[in-house]
Amino acid sequence: MEILSKNIVLKDYIPTGTPSTKNFNVREIPIKISKDKEVLVKNLWISVDPYMRTRMTDRKNYIPPFTLNEPMDGSAIGEVIETNSKIFSKGDLVYSFCGWRDYFVTNEENLEKIKPIDVPIQAYLGPLGFTGHTAYVGLFNIGNLQPEKTVLVSSAAGAVGSMVCQFAKIMGCKVIASTGTDEKVEWLKNELLVDHAFNYKKVENLVLYFKDKCPDGFDFYFDNVGGEFLESVIYRMKNFGKIVICGRISQMNATSPTGLKNMAHVLVKRLTIRGFLIFDHLKDRAKFEKDVSKWIKEGKLQWKETVVQGLENSPEAFANLLEGKNIGKMLIKI
Amino acid sequence: MEILSKNIVLKDYIPTGTPSTKNFNVREIPIKISKDKEVLVKNLWISVDPYMRTRMTDRKNYIPPFTLNEPMDGSAIGEVIETNSKIFSKGDLVYSFCGWRDYFVTNEENLEKIKPIDVPIQAYLGPLGFTGHTAYVGLFNIGNLQPEKTVLVSSAAGAVGSMVCQFAKIMGCKVIASTGTDEKVEWLKNELLVDHAFNYKKVENLVLYFKDKCPDGFDFYFDNVGGEFLESVIYRMKNFGKIVICGRISQMNATSPTGLKNMAHVLVKRLTIRGFLIFDHLKDRAKFEKDVSKWIKEGKLQWKETVVQGLENSPEAFANLLEGKNIGKMLIKI
Repeated sequence: MEILSKNIVLKDYIPTGTPSTKNFNVREIPIKISKDKEVLVKNLWISVDPYMRTRMTDRKNYIPPFTLNEPMDGSAIGEVIETNSKIFSKGDLVYSFCGWRDYFVTNEENLEKIKPIDVPIQAYLGPLGFTGHTAYVGLFNIGNLQPEKTVLVSSAAGAVGSMVCQFAKIMGCKVIASTGTDEKVEWLKNELLVDHAFNYKKVENLVLYFKDKCPDGFDFYFDNVGGEFLESVIYRMKNFGKIVICGRISQMNATSPTGLKNMAHVLVKRLTIRGFLIFDHLKDRAKFEKDVSKWIKEGKLQWKETVVQGLENSPEAFANLLEGKNIGKMLIKI
Repeated sequence: MEILSKNIVLKDYIPTGTPSTKNFNVREIPIKISKDKEVLVKNLWISVDPYMRTRMTDRKNYIPPFTLNEPMDGSAIGEVIETNSKIFSKGDLVYSFCGWRDYFVTNEENLEKIKPIDVPIQAYLGPLGFTGHTAYVGLFNIGNLQPEKTVLVSSAAGAVGSMVCQFAKIMGCKVIASTGTDEKVEWLKNELLVDHAFNYKKVENLVLYFKDKCPDGFDFYFDNVGGEFLESVIYRMKNFGKIVICGRISQMNATSPTGLKNMAHVLVKRLTIRGFLIFDHLKDRAKFEKDVSKWIKEGKLQWKETVVQGLENSPEAFANLLEGKNIGKMLIKI
């Protein structure tokens, strides 16, 4: 069966600034299965994620830049439509890294079968997907979080941040959550039941604010933003504190990065700062899936989705994501 | 026996800048043993160390500021002159933290007996003392250094740095050594046999220099200087590299610290940065002493001392230390 595949392509690299719809094209190309082991998939849900911003520049990075005028990739959930594979049958739900398009053909080895527990299928792009896994690896594998610690989370209402808050609460930690709108503050307080949530945009001096709200300081900081926020946190870390660097959304569109002026605190307070990328941990999902499936079944996890309808709206959704207009996971429904 | 104890006291706190002799006084006070378990010690060797600079400000820190107009403390080696202790006999060699004075009285619990191997006694302030221990803990306990890594060391001809270079060579690592005079470069190359040594003051652009001399980058950086040097190194770290922060001598007299602008590299290259202080590890000397005594006996370790005669010259020696005028351990001989 030949089918018309609609896909989003990047027209030009965007060295700085927020991407806009004019940086992308919608393109249609005919595709079909032609080889053994190939599978034709219809995407149902596509994930847009902050890390994709780094792929829109042509700088060398941990993951190659998107190829201009070629389909962009990323996490997606789809359904098998036609198959030359012995592993996949028509109707199977599959996870792939073939996002930003509605239909695609790929070799079976690029697909992972989903055996869903009783949650909406798009949870496999959220708490049970990339983002839940990122929160889990950062807290436990990288940061070795222990019970009863005081944990600060930035971008706490984001897809990763909201999982971090809840995983840390499940561990018996005290959770302080930073976010950028009052609506998100309410969600964090009333639904995710963090110990304290605040809108950082309304705080004049973060260091003084932290001193006031959390006078003993932080044992653990899950950093999604970088920049001046990170600097302020370092001033308020406890001795032997840990900072796990997962993202730096405050710096992603910045033309000149903020300098971190308080490295003295890293020495004097014997801090550990560790950066990590989920791509290094993709094979190590078993414990994560087991724990998070259990927590979901026990009703201990909540999540929100910001759903945008239609593939052609992905670029706009992505721009909104970088500006913090979403709550929870930003998803494209096809 | 009453004896006149000469000691150096700090007159005023020094918020910024290099301390000079005018910041200190020489004072004499009569002392004698009066209680059970007290010991009278004559200091033979006193250590002056960069970390002492932080104690000359009244800022809160990992170790309290020196008390103004009271004897300053620090590592020292002395000989027991008179004793009310069952543990220490006259003539015993002892290690203490009662530096910056010629004679002192203290409780036996503040002294540690030295059973010297066949090295000059002041080695217990150097390779077998505080500084050797600092190098050992930083490389092995904090950084978990593995064989055959590429290790960069700053202040490599200093007391700690020169031990780091040699311990790393013993581990089979490739060692790149940075220092501030050509004389030190020669010593590092010809005596300590590091793989490459250079005078950083003669390098215009450190990042390009590193790229040229060590194109594959560094696995491990033992940081004694902080500031712009650290920033340049971060640009050239390999993926999963480790940075152990032991000191920040470049920033100690600085009025405004240098901002670290490349935290993006910590994320993208999954770096670990850890600060440590030797004070947290003082009880954990057994493995260090065993290894380093063995290496000394095998002739695998060399060290230099810059010896200044006379307690009254300690302030000047300390100022020279901060300006890098020493090679190896800066010691006061009494």
